[in-house]
Amino acid sequence: MTSPTKPLLFNAAPMFTASHGHHGQWRRPDAIDPEFNDVRLWIDLAKKLEEATFDGIFFPDVSGHHGPVDVPIDTIVEEGLQLPSNDPLLLLAALATHTENIGLAFTSNILQAHPFTFARQVSTLDHLSGGRASWNIVTGWQNNGARNFGLRSLPEHDSRYEWAEEYVEVAYKLWEGSWDEGALLKDKANSRFSDPAMVHKIFHEGPRYRVEGPHLPSPSLQRTPLLYQAGSSAAGRAFAARHAEGVFLMPDSPAGAAEQISQTRALAVEAGRRPEDLKFFPGLSFIVGDTEEEAQDKAEFVHSYVSVAGLLAHMAVVDDDGQAYPLDTPLSRVRTQAMQGTVERARSRITDREPIVEDLALELRSNPLVGTPEQIADALEEWRDAGVDGINVMSYVLGDYAEFADKVIPVLRERGLAKTAYGEGSYRRKLFGEDRLNDRHPAAAYRGAFSNGPRTWEEATA
Amino acid sequence: MTSPTKPLLFNAAPMFTASHGHHGQWRRPDAIDPEFNDVRLWIDLAKKLEEATFDGIFFPDVSGHHGPVDVPIDTIVEEGLQLPSNDPLLLLAALATHTENIGLAFTSNILQAHPFTFARQVSTLDHLSGGRASWNIVTGWQNNGARNFGLRSLPEHDSRYEWAEEYVEVAYKLWEGSWDEGALLKDKANSRFSDPAMVHKIFHEGPRYRVEGPHLPSPSLQRTPLLYQAGSSAAGRAFAARHAEGVFLMPDSPAGAAEQISQTRALAVEAGRRPEDLKFFPGLSFIVGDTEEEAQDKAEFVHSYVSVAGLLAHMAVVDDDGQAYPLDTPLSRVRTQAMQGTVERARSRITDREPIVEDLALELRSNPLVGTPEQIADALEEWRDAGVDGINVMSYVLGDYAEFADKVIPVLRERGLAKTAYGEGSYRRKLFGEDRLNDRHPAAAYRGAFSNGPRTWEEATA
Repeated sequence: MTSPTKPLLFNAAPMFTASHGHHGQWRRPDAIDPEFNDVRLWIDLAKKLEEATFDGIFFPDVSGHHGPVDVPIDTIVEEGLQLPSNDPLLLLAALATHTENIGLAFTSNILQAHPFTFARQVSTLDHLSGGRASWNIVTGWQNNGARNFGLRSLPEHDSRYEWAEEYVEVAYKLWEGSWDEGALLKDKANSRFSDPAMVHKIFHEGPRYRVEGPHLPSPSLQRTPLLYQAGSSAAGRAFAARHAEGVFLMPDSPAGAAEQISQTRALAVEAGRRPEDLKFFPGLSFIVGDTEEEAQDKAEFVHSYVSVAGLLAHMAVVDDDGQAYPLDTPLSRVRTQAMQGTVERARSRITDREPIVEDLALELRSNPLVGTPEQIADALEEWRDAGVDGINVMSYVLGDYAEFADKVIPVLRERGLAKTAYGEGSYRRKLFGEDRLNDRHPAAAYRGAFSNGPRTWEEATA
Repeated sequence: MTSPTKPLLFNAAPMFTASHGHHGQWRRPDAIDPEFNDVRLWIDLAKKLEEATFDGIFFPDVSGHHGPVDVPIDTIVEEGLQLPSNDPLLLLAALATHTENIGLAFTSNILQAHPFTFARQVSTLDHLSGGRASWNIVTGWQNNGARNFGLRSLPEHDSRYEWAEEYVEVAYKLWEGSWDEGALLKDKANSRFSDPAMVHKIFHEGPRYRVEGPHLPSPSLQRTPLLYQAGSSAAGRAFAARHAEGVFLMPDSPAGAAEQISQTRALAVEAGRRPEDLKFFPGLSFIVGDTEEEAQDKAEFVHSYVSVAGLLAHMAVVDDDGQAYPLDTPLSRVRTQAMQGTVERARSRITDREPIVEDLALELRSNPLVGTPEQIADALEEWRDAGVDGINVMSYVLGDYAEFADKVIPVLRERGLAKTAYGEGSYRRKLFGEDRLNDRHPAAAYRGAFSNGPRTWEEATA
């Protein structure tokens, strides 16, 4: 049980696209999301979030389209279903210079960038932002994404986590081990910019990567960025337990969250970490009204814009032509690559009539918290009491964040559920009290690891 | 001969590091370059450059350290010789939001990023900047750089250009071919974000890359960024003639520039382009004084800070321990991997005594234009009359740009050698009058190329 006075952490979780997880909402008259290519929207949003002392802005990302790859992508294109989308890392570099406190988090998967280049880009973001860079480690899960990078198909699930282990190992070596503490001198009088005894090549050689080093940037405030992860499979949870400082959840209920949290924390302890080394963030959507009636009316308005075709395309529930099934299609006639289990579950729940695609869509549609700011505060109190550390606020339309900031945050602050001012220092310091990863994290093993290391590949592989 | 009233174009060419091409200058009391990790320096610089109507800010870049790889990098580290350095693409994303007109150019080599990810990041920069992204295409030439990306050594020179041909082909297909003109609808009423008939997979299959597509970003204002290139070998010039819109030169003299320009333009015409499709930018350094005497004093001051050790380390003229040779070492005892030809030339020029390392250093040291703003204007007039289109201004220290802007630009404007206001539109429109590449460029071949293209790999490879 957390202390009753401990505020929740808040991330905004938009995506650098027009239609992220709430299909069809971009069509609303009040949706500015279709203008996502315009950076001014994002600067305004980031400033608004800082006024409301949001801890982070987190951009999920993809490296390809959803769904099966050998069917047309017509529905995906028409729905703007995370397509088009832009690179969030560059957006965060821009936002770093218009904000001072908010954490800058993004997803990058292990297929899309070589770890040497990726580690340099992240260090650059950490320098540009004064220590606010944060990475959501993703193994990649789209077949199209894999086929954009030369693979015939996605590697088998567990082998992706082995790949991810090597990927983060290379990055940790560069971030934590290549430059010793104090290596950067900037000593004009003695003509020593850095100390050669303290800058090291890493000579990494593994199944997938061979990287010489040294890391090109000097150490940034955090070195390793704040690490998020969202895996829910057994391999994914083991990976999170070992590496993550923040874990994204999509639980059904506070009790469901509590169960996932206690399981992952137990795994973390087995891996030599402490329960409090990990913070947990369920993703929630909100529909806010000044009165309960207004909130319900707004929920009706929001739901009237849900695109079932978009939802089903996202879940890869499409026919052989890539088209969504008509809503009255019997579920017995639905075949899908990824979600067949969910289809079967929906079928088994309805026994008094023939279940149809509309039943599946209702099952898959997200379940927002609807109510007045006070009612939402009540609900969030339950989530906090279940042991979650923070909330990923997921918008229907970008304007939702300003509404949450203006209407909900003040009530949460009154109740001690949201803080009123930022703490000092880096993103990690604000969340965990220190700028650098603690010694229990596997990355810490690479600190000083190369101080008396090899100077050539010959020595390294001797 | 250019028209006498045609102003020159001006790029600033700093690097996201403390010591770029003028070794040792970071030690000067007035050098802020050691603070390069602080983004505020760069925002101030970019704004200053816009006041002076500089056309572009161009960041060269590397993916590793200079010099041979199996010797210690002590001198490189001590000199801060392009190490540490950060990723310029992220810096440009930030600068895009603090400027309105200046072109945002950077180097990226074909080893450091997969073309699918790279093309997306560039499109993102073009969106963030309203059409000001520009790429200097580099094949990579550092052995350490190659060994950071899994290679045992750098591929043979000409094969790097074959690789580069495929790399740009993938990028062109994504930028020019994947989204037809008008594909983005944002049509709320008809629930069509984009037109499925106009968004295409590219199904690229070549010796090095297999990329499915579609391109994730929607078309940005320029689509393909403004393309720079700097190759001076036969393969490099052929590549520039085929692909470049701007060419960087390092000529000895206006006459030397004129010769390179006419040769490359002739190659461009052979490749189906027009002479005026390419603009040429020699890199020049400047030392400015209010009087000639002041300029000469300043030149002495600047040269007193030249680090010969840094210069020689940059040129890979180092002994087996990675150390620079003492200045009085006879050149007959100098062995170097990359620059042996230059060593031999220096030896052959001095016949009345034994040539030493100091002679080589003087030969390699850059040759700035030194004088009053009027004298510099005279010299630039000669360069313009030789047919160069613009100048890459290379700083000794970052403050040089403000000095050039405040002292030299006003004189150049009076003489019609520098413009007084920006033109309208994208970077390409400002330079060439149109936002998109013209039809003579090889990238144009991919426009509409996928409109009736394959929908699956099976069809694509049938």
